[in-house]
Order: sequence, then C-alpha cells, then structure tokens
Amino acid sequence: MPYVNIKITNEDVTPEKKAALIKGATQLLVDVLGKNPATTVVVIDEVDTDNWGIAGETVTKRRKEGK
Amino acid sequence: MPYVNIKITNEDVTPEKKAALIKGATQLLVDVLGKNPATTVVVIDEVDTDNWGIAGETVTKRRKEGK
Amino acid sequence: MPYVNIKITNEDVTPEKKAALIKGATQLLVDVLGKNPATTVVVIDEVDTDNWGIAGETVTKRRKEGK
Amino acid sequence: MPYVNIKITNEDVTPEKKAALIKGATQLLVDVLGKNPATTVVVIDEVDTDNWGIAGETVTKRRKEGK
Amino acid sequence: MPYVNIKITNEDVTPEKKAALIKGATQLLVDVLGKNPATTVVVIDEVDTDNWGIAGETVTKRRKEGK
Amino acid sequence: MPYVNIKITNEDVTPEKKAALIKGATQLLVDVLGKNPATTVVVIDEVDTDNWGIAGETVTKRRKEGK
Repeated sequence: MPYVNIKITNEDVTPEKKAALIKGATQLLVDVLGKNPATTVVVIDEVDTDNWGIAGETVTKRRKEGK
Repeated sequence: MPYVNIKITNEDVTPEKKAALIKGATQLLVDVLGKNPATTVVVIDEVDTDNWGIAGETVTKRRKEGK
Repeated sequence: MPYVNIKITNEDVTPEKKAALIKGATQLLVDVLGKNPATTVVVIDEVDTDNWGIAGETVTKRRKEGK
Repeated sequence: MPYVNIKITNEDVTPEKKAALIKGATQLLVDVLGKNPATTVVVIDEVDTDNWGIAGETVTKRRKEGK
Repeated sequence: MPYVNIKITNEDVTPEKKAALIKGATQLLVDVLGKNPATTVVVIDEVDTDNWGIAGETVTKRRKEGK
Repeated sequence: MPYVNIKITNEDVTPEKKAALIKGATQLLVDVLGKNPATTVVVIDEVDTDNWGIAGETVTKRRKEGK
C-alpha cells in the first residue's frame, strides 16, 4: 500500500533503469517494513534540466559549466 | 482552497474525461466539506506506463502480459 | 492503480468526512476512467492553517479577519 | 536541504523565467530560514491547461471564455 | 540531486526503520543511475490510517476487519 | 492559480517565518510570471528530522554529528 515517488532529471534514463528503480524501491519496502508488494506503487517523474534547480541555478546551466 | 492531485497512467485519457475528473473532484470537496469551488484546484498528472510501477514491475510490462 | 492526494486545512475534518472523501474519490476514478478500485489509493493531507497560504497570507490570518 | 515544488500551467514559461523562479525560491529559503542554497532543490512542474482545473473546469475552457 | 518521497501509514515505523529506508533509497539511486548521494534527498511521510484509503475505504476500517 | 509546496525540516519555524515564506513565494509568482496572487496557493510541509534524509542518513543523525 505504500506510495513512492522518485523525481530525477531526464538524462539517459532507459526503460531498463526505470524497471530497476521500480523493482528496487518495492523490494526496499518489503524488506524494511514488510509491506505487500502487490499494492506498492512507484511513480517516476522525469524532469527537464531547465525545470530542476539546485544551488539557485538550473541543471541545464550547471551541465554547461561541467558541474 | 483545497488542492487535489490525481495521478494516472497516460492511457486514453481524453480531454472530456479530464474535464469530468476535475468537475467531479471539485464537487466532492463541496459536498463533503463545504469548500468553495472557486478556489479549489485539481491537477491531473498523466504518467507514462514505463514510469509507473506496481507489484515491483512497470505497467508497460504488465500490459504486455495482459494484466 | 490511480493515486489521489487531497490537501485540505485541518479544520473540523471528522473521520466520517475523511471516509466520504476516500469513497467518493475512488468512485470518481471508477466512473470516469473505469479504474480498478482495489488498487486505487487516496491519501488525505491535513495542513495546519499556519502552513497554508492563499493570496499571500496564511489561512490563520484570514480566519481571524473573517475571510 | 529544503525542497520546493512549483506547479504552473505551461503557458509561455521561458527558460529565463524558470531560472528566475529557481533563483528566487532558493533566495527566499536563504533569507527567511537561513538555509544552505547548495542543497536547496527547486522543481518546476508545467501542467497542460487540459490537466489543470479551478472552479470545477479546465483552464483550457476558461481561457476560451476569456477568464 | 534526486528527490524521493515515501508515503506509508504510521504503523510501527521506528527511527531505525526510517534510517534503513533512507539509506536504501539513496543507495538505489546510486546503484541504478550513478547519482551523487550527497545531494540525494529522501522524505518519509507517515500518514494516519484514517487518512489513507484503498479500495474505497480507510485503512482504519480495514485494520478493524482484519484486512 | 499556481501551487507551491515548500518542504522543510521542523526546526524552529515560527508562524512569522511561515507567513514570510508564503508572502515571498506568492510575490515571486507575481513578479516572474504575472500570476494572480488571489488564487496562488502555498503549502508548507514541516518534516520531522527522523523522516528527512540526505546523503543516505537522517537529519537527526547529522545534527548530532554537528553537520
């Protein structure tokens, strides 16, 4: 019954990696809290680098600067 | 003043259905809690089936298996 | 499989009203999109009036002013 | 360490405006709470006007009616 | 830089279990996507069983019925 | 009509500081995007330091270590 939301920038996130995130997050809830995987929901939000900010600037700008 | 967020997979959700979700969710808040519809916000997030997981696997995989 | 999040101020929201919100939101997803209620999750967040702002001021302040 | 999420309709939000939102929101957390900007995250969600409702109707409908 | 939000009911979630969820979710992002753990944020929301619904009813009601 | 969610740890956040966050976030949306403050919603979530993780550990642990 848990709900997990993973927000990441949309940089090279393949369907295989998404499947691995979903599998791993679900297993984490099973292992730590004994939750039922059948009703554990995981939603991945991929965010454009223009729309993600850290340290007051966009990730787009940081990537151009090699950060 | 309530805020409602509805997350669903992006499978055949027409503009008419979205309008029905928004109308229905707003009315629910009016009926149950007497909220003012004028400031009731509803946001619908459509999520790719690759990005939605349940039971530890993506909805894309489940759809292929006929689940 | 849908996920619905309802955010409201914590003003007289009884367990009965919460149950009605959960029932109504789930039914909405069934009626409009044909979703399976068994895996439809609804989470209600009750927010202190000090922590909710509209029009640039807290709801606490607005309530004192009779808004 | 704070996390700020800004949800707006996807109407003419240029990269420059997004950068200004991220810079301003980060500075707000620094000014009011003395937070460290280096670990302050801001995520902007742009939502289609079909998917945003207020007063029980979609923003798409409201824009057509000149609201 | 990723942001992970875990929503669970507030049923026997000890500080040790929370620490395990945070450690595990952070490691998952490192393992699958090569993210930097130093800026990976995990937020756990514990939700009252009155406020969590599944299958159209509250978890409070389901627990009483032995579900 | 925008919706802003600010998540912070629950460490000395006075009602005055919350009011300042709400005022500032609303003004930011007015200044940058010309949004109507009357329908701009800001919700502040205060999160227990046990429930907030960064760098794979809880903020509770980090505070004890003087981080």
